[in-house]
Amino acid sequence: MNTPTLISRHKMFNGHHERYRHASAATGTDMTFAVYLPPQALQGYQVPVLYWLSGLTCTDENFSTKAGAQRFAAQWGMALVMPDTSPRGDDVADDERYDLGQGAGFYVNAVEAPWAAHYQMYDYVAHELPALIEAHFPVTDKRSISGHSMGGHGALQIALKNPGRYAAVSAFAPIVNPSETPWGQKAFTAYLGGDQTTWAQYDSTKLVQTASAKLPILIDQGGGDDFYPQELQPEKFAAAARGNGFHVQFNLRPGYDHSYYFIASFIDSHIEFHADALGL
Amino acid sequence: MNTPTLISRHKMFNGHHERYRHASAATGTDMTFAVYLPPQALQGYQVPVLYWLSGLTCTDENFSTKAGAQRFAAQWGMALVMPDTSPRGDDVADDERYDLGQGAGFYVNAVEAPWAAHYQMYDYVAHELPALIEAHFPVTDKRSISGHSMGGHGALQIALKNPGRYAAVSAFAPIVNPSETPWGQKAFTAYLGGDQTTWAQYDSTKLVQTASAKLPILIDQGGGDDFYPQELQPEKFAAAARGNGFHVQFNLRPGYDHSYYFIASFIDSHIEFHADALGL
Repeated sequence: MNTPTLISRHKMFNGHHERYRHASAATGTDMTFAVYLPPQALQGYQVPVLYWLSGLTCTDENFSTKAGAQRFAAQWGMALVMPDTSPRGDDVADDERYDLGQGAGFYVNAVEAPWAAHYQMYDYVAHELPALIEAHFPVTDKRSISGHSMGGHGALQIALKNPGRYAAVSAFAPIVNPSETPWGQKAFTAYLGGDQTTWAQYDSTKLVQTASAKLPILIDQGGGDDFYPQELQPEKFAAAARGNGFHVQFNLRPGYDHSYYFIASFIDSHIEFHADALGL
Repeated sequence: MNTPTLISRHKMFNGHHERYRHASAATGTDMTFAVYLPPQALQGYQVPVLYWLSGLTCTDENFSTKAGAQRFAAQWGMALVMPDTSPRGDDVADDERYDLGQGAGFYVNAVEAPWAAHYQMYDYVAHELPALIEAHFPVTDKRSISGHSMGGHGALQIALKNPGRYAAVSAFAPIVNPSETPWGQKAFTAYLGGDQTTWAQYDSTKLVQTASAKLPILIDQGGGDDFYPQELQPEKFAAAARGNGFHVQFNLRPGYDHSYYFIASFIDSHIEFHADALGL
């Protein structure tokens, strides 16, 4: 396994906010990620990790700079890991639309050309990146996972398909039923082709109906989010999850939109939710 | 006075983060600013205002998205007002260097061509903008002021020259002695010409030696800031201020750099400092 190369380091809340680049076996490209190491990690303690998956158009930097999560990660003593949302590069397939291609990997393993060559974000986020983090940083093997919009979809389906790997899962304004909503249908058609059984492997509302490991779930949704009625509808997921015995805390937040102003307003409660699940 | 035009509004911490554009008499251009109205202001109460002046290359958006200040403004019940750092536009003089022209107004009233036509940022920030804010938003006439780097210079010299207008002043990594440091000398030569008595009107370390109104001063400086030794040296200002009877709290923060990762780490203590001075 290649050692990641440090790109930048900033002291923040007595910890370190760092960016790294490494050669990914899953994507066949260089990948960039950010990690926040809380002060406890710099003092020699191993800390659990919260993975954050971002939404369409984002890189590792949106959450790093806008959410204000590091303040609470420092207080609780957890690391944050923020991957990019797709492979990138001149020789990586792309599309001129913002919701397909680079910046829009949808956390799936693509099987269709030209995407399959590099768009293996499910394997990257669920397997390769945690192994890299646990080999090179002062962390335990306790993990939790969260995300926003497309990243909420990523967090939910990855947590549901990997029993025991994550202590809890949370999401802001997640895509929960991509098989039946426009963003998801467009991306799944391109990356996965026409086989609905393949689509179902990445559809949280379908997965949760038979998922066995009942990890705690927290979802916040802005009531003023333009994407809420058509693209998101997280109540559908919450109902399906509760139907299969999951404990779901679903918070509808009147007036809040889809932006990081919304995420920043409630990130403290998500970090606290994961801290509790991680035993902090 | 023209009514400002709303550009965008996001709910944040139960308040509103808003951007506006208006025709400025001081600069002779349209100017953009951001305002955060805490929940108390939306509930019908008038709140005091903290003005934030940003550094080189910034717009109103850097502090708005990266500092995390709104969380604490909401808790204390103060509005935040974040102006741009210069006039902008195709017909506004500019320079290819990052530290002169658009994005680098230095909060002075330029007297030299071609800058004097629009670069009147001192009048804009010290007079026109507060009058606009107090006419159009649910705020009191209690004000405080803060800033970063070039904006720290702006906050300090504006507060010192306007006794009674501001309850307190704080700064992150401020330029305090622009007459004798490279950024300041370059900008002052361009905007103000060669007359050192004009320069002295905008040099906080000189102004503070004779300033009469002893408002409280808080400064944080990162010990790992690349600009600290040559461009900043805020200890020179702190010593001069204490010599004239000011109470200065100066915090050297080992390892922190010049970025918003540093500002985010200590913004809570600055908001609390201003809240105390504003009687909240």
